[in-house]
Amino acid sequence: MGDFDYQKLDDVIHSRMRLAIMSVLMTVTEADFNFLKKQVNATDGNLSISLKKLEESGYVSVTKSFIDRKPSSKYQLTPEGRTAFSVYLGQLEKLLGKQTPD
Amino acid sequence: MGDFDYQKLDDVIHSRMRLAIMSVLMTVTEADFNFLKKQVNATDGNLSISLKKLEESGYVSVTKSFIDRKPSSKYQLTPEGRTAFSVYLGQLEKLLGKQTPD
Repeated sequence: MGDFDYQKLDDVIHSRMRLAIMSVLMTVTEADFNFLKKQVNATDGNLSISLKKLEESGYVSVTKSFIDRKPSSKYQLTPEGRTAFSVYLGQLEKLLGKQTPD
Repeated sequence: MGDFDYQKLDDVIHSRMRLAIMSVLMTVTEADFNFLKKQVNATDGNLSISLKKLEESGYVSVTKSFIDRKPSSKYQLTPEGRTAFSVYLGQLEKLLGKQTPD
């Protein structure tokens, strides 16, 4: 096995939009759909698909409620998501090795 | 536009295998097909497709020759490829922000 094995990078996290979503969620306790949409610059459809995939993978959990009779969805990283993100970052650093700028 | 805009990441470079190939090529003057294949742990078909995409994007150049009557292909980053990789790393660092491990 080579030193630059691409399969060591978690494919669920690596997609550009899912990586952006996970990065946002690392910085907050929870975030609603519109906040995420604005932060990652996504369309409703693409964001929904990405969040669904992260939920199915157990990396993100969602709490649905009603605020002033309007549905509200709050997203947050699960402990598994935080761990997976940390592992991903470690593998990424390893792959990029000395190429990372100071 | 949000702080975590996923579209700022160069899609040509971001794919796991292409990122691995670019990372290898940053560490050497040139590399042949079999060396790359071993380093990134790819199949012939997938590696060919990824290299083709990088060539078409102008990030990688290939020199074909014969050694002992056998065809040999040497791959190397172009100046454009090095610049694009550097820009990509900068955007990645920005996206990951404070989440990057020390």
